[in-house]
Amino acid sequence: MSLIVVKFGGTSVADVDKIERAAEKVVREVRAGHQVVVVVSAMSGVTNQLVGYCNEVSTMHDLYEYDVVVSSGEQVTAGLMALALHKHGIAARSWLGWQIPFKTDEMHSKARVRDIETKHLLEALEKGEVAVVPGFQGVTFNNRISTLGRGGSDTSAVALAAALKAERCDIYTDVDGVYTTDPRIVPGARKLKTISFEEMMELASLGAKVLQTRSVEIAMKHGVALQVLSSFEDAIGSDMPGTLVVREDKIMEEELVSGIACGRDEAKITLLRVADKPGVASAVFTPLGEAGINVDMIVQNITSDGQSTDMTFTVSRADLERALKVLKDAKIECDEIRSAANVAKISVVGVGMKSHAGVAQKMFTALASKGINIQVISTSEIKISVLIEEDYAELAVRTLHSAYGLEEAA
Amino acid sequence: MSLIVVKFGGTSVADVDKIERAAEKVVREVRAGHQVVVVVSAMSGVTNQLVGYCNEVSTMHDLYEYDVVVSSGEQVTAGLMALALHKHGIAARSWLGWQIPFKTDEMHSKARVRDIETKHLLEALEKGEVAVVPGFQGVTFNNRISTLGRGGSDTSAVALAAALKAERCDIYTDVDGVYTTDPRIVPGARKLKTISFEEMMELASLGAKVLQTRSVEIAMKHGVALQVLSSFEDAIGSDMPGTLVVREDKIMEEELVSGIACGRDEAKITLLRVADKPGVASAVFTPLGEAGINVDMIVQNITSDGQSTDMTFTVSRADLERALKVLKDAKIECDEIRSAANVAKISVVGVGMKSHAGVAQKMFTALASKGINIQVISTSEIKISVLIEEDYAELAVRTLHSAYGLEEAA
Repeated sequence: MSLIVVKFGGTSVADVDKIERAAEKVVREVRAGHQVVVVVSAMSGVTNQLVGYCNEVSTMHDLYEYDVVVSSGEQVTAGLMALALHKHGIAARSWLGWQIPFKTDEMHSKARVRDIETKHLLEALEKGEVAVVPGFQGVTFNNRISTLGRGGSDTSAVALAAALKAERCDIYTDVDGVYTTDPRIVPGARKLKTISFEEMMELASLGAKVLQTRSVEIAMKHGVALQVLSSFEDAIGSDMPGTLVVREDKIMEEELVSGIACGRDEAKITLLRVADKPGVASAVFTPLGEAGINVDMIVQNITSDGQSTDMTFTVSRADLERALKVLKDAKIECDEIRSAANVAKISVVGVGMKSHAGVAQKMFTALASKGINIQVISTSEIKISVLIEEDYAELAVRTLHSAYGLEEAA
Repeated sequence: MSLIVVKFGGTSVADVDKIERAAEKVVREVRAGHQVVVVVSAMSGVTNQLVGYCNEVSTMHDLYEYDVVVSSGEQVTAGLMALALHKHGIAARSWLGWQIPFKTDEMHSKARVRDIETKHLLEALEKGEVAVVPGFQGVTFNNRISTLGRGGSDTSAVALAAALKAERCDIYTDVDGVYTTDPRIVPGARKLKTISFEEMMELASLGAKVLQTRSVEIAMKHGVALQVLSSFEDAIGSDMPGTLVVREDKIMEEELVSGIACGRDEAKITLLRVADKPGVASAVFTPLGEAGINVDMIVQNITSDGQSTDMTFTVSRADLERALKVLKDAKIECDEIRSAANVAKISVVGVGMKSHAGVAQKMFTALASKGINIQVISTSEIKISVLIEEDYAELAVRTLHSAYGLEEAA
């Protein structure tokens, strides 16, 4: 008998009907002889509504109480999922974060998992009960409700799978796997049978909203076998229904490039003629960090005079106004601060590129062939990202998808 | 410095705007130097929606999980109320049932309060914090969420007031006090300045939906000074804003009759020619009790033959079908079972009637003068109830209100 964790996202539990359909998938896993932990999101739209209430009261709300409010959506789904399982004669009960307890740190609204007590859950599973756990929520060491940040239910599921040493963790969502790129942009995008944790992390952080980045990090660290599946297809019985996220060495046919990601959440800030001396980067990025603003791509060129430099970096669009204010208050020595929100970040991701030359070359040539100007470049071992004008985003994705031969075999 | 409990019902916290207005009332109590515990209901409509979800999954749902689902509404309001108080610079935090802990028995969906730990709450109040408590919810000794039944937030508030030895418990609702009868039926109905616990209990149980009956019971038992106020009027500063519910001996001007109540939740069952022998009543009411069906008015007449009798009693309309089935299954020896749902129960309530003769006489005469037929009569020390045809309900209420001289003084 093996233990599995299955997680259903918001669209998979959008209403009572969908919850019942999700319950049927759980029933089949139970009938197949598995011990099952079910992790559920809030019904779609509920969390946004709850966040809206908090913002309506005050945009500067206390995060302790924010967590009390927004964690309630998953509690509702957990109770309903248990009720739906009972209808099939399956013993099931909900386990709220504080009942497990699912301990997190005190960083309310984006808490990190610290310690999951498995004793009660394992006893329940041993008795043949399905354990239904509301995702997204935990409890701090001070006994207050915490939440793991938007998309945190993925992290709940993977952390539970790690703590319970589950055989695998199935993430049911509204897409049926991970694609070589967004199928809405490139209809010929191909579903990947396997993808490495590293690639999945890059894709997740680049806006392919299949899994929360942190959940992939935890899965990689603890070796949790992760599977992305559609909750709207009948996956049981088919050979390879979704996409398996696995260790790099388990990928059979390694591909040069696994996917093309497109992120539209970027905004660009350029500091013109910043003094080119030690400590400048720190003067810029320390106050941004203290304000909790994440900086993504950073490029710096030496200008001809040798005394000043232009520095460009990106922040998320939601942070742009605040970032500009922080920079103004920090009185950075520079001629001018420019910003633009109409940019898109296009990335080519693949573990194969570590050992292959020419991947970047092919990217730049392909974009140039369509007259697309590259504003900023940043690279990692398994990723090349460029910033381009947003209007060209779809064209760039289609061009690159074709340049790397990622189309579905005819 | 005195401690008070204030409770806001669903219509008083129907949306964020109303929550903010309710918070302002709390702020004024704090500024007036009180330690304040705020008890909140779910935003109006929310509990019905959650109950609807549970029924949609299954009408025979497990009550443990039902409680998990339906308790979430108050949690949301509690968090939002705390946030609204913060905006005024008031320190406040939410205390969920399991955090207090507010212990109840295991009768899920209609649990009874067992033990309220006051240590944490008193510490928070001593620090100058407002404690915001979601009504309706508690936690069992098994650490599962329980709820106190519909309208249970009143009971939460009064039980907290009793445990914390509060100076008073203010119930803010959408009416501004207790009236001599329903003002929608009799426009001249008069607001009572004071009412005794006993009268309030009779009125509450008779369908004057101002307070949950159990909350009045607890208030009487523990001597909690209870006040019913409108959350939509600015009560602070006015002399006697709502209705005070007090011990009988504290009522200054005792009135013969305090109010006329009208209940439409009744259905009548008559057993024709039941055998008139010992054990018959038990044979009828034991199976009903076992099925959880409350029987209200009971009358039994001896028939002329001395061997059989007609027995009439009322149950709530929602239980009628089930009650008929139980009686059929119990194979009661009788000629026929008849039932009717088109009945209304009209009651005259007043502690004064204990020491005055003629109150019942006046009721019967007044009804007869309008040609209203009395089907069943039942009396207690402070109440006379009659069952009449539902069509005559309003006429009966108006007639009695006038007969006892309850109109507002011109």
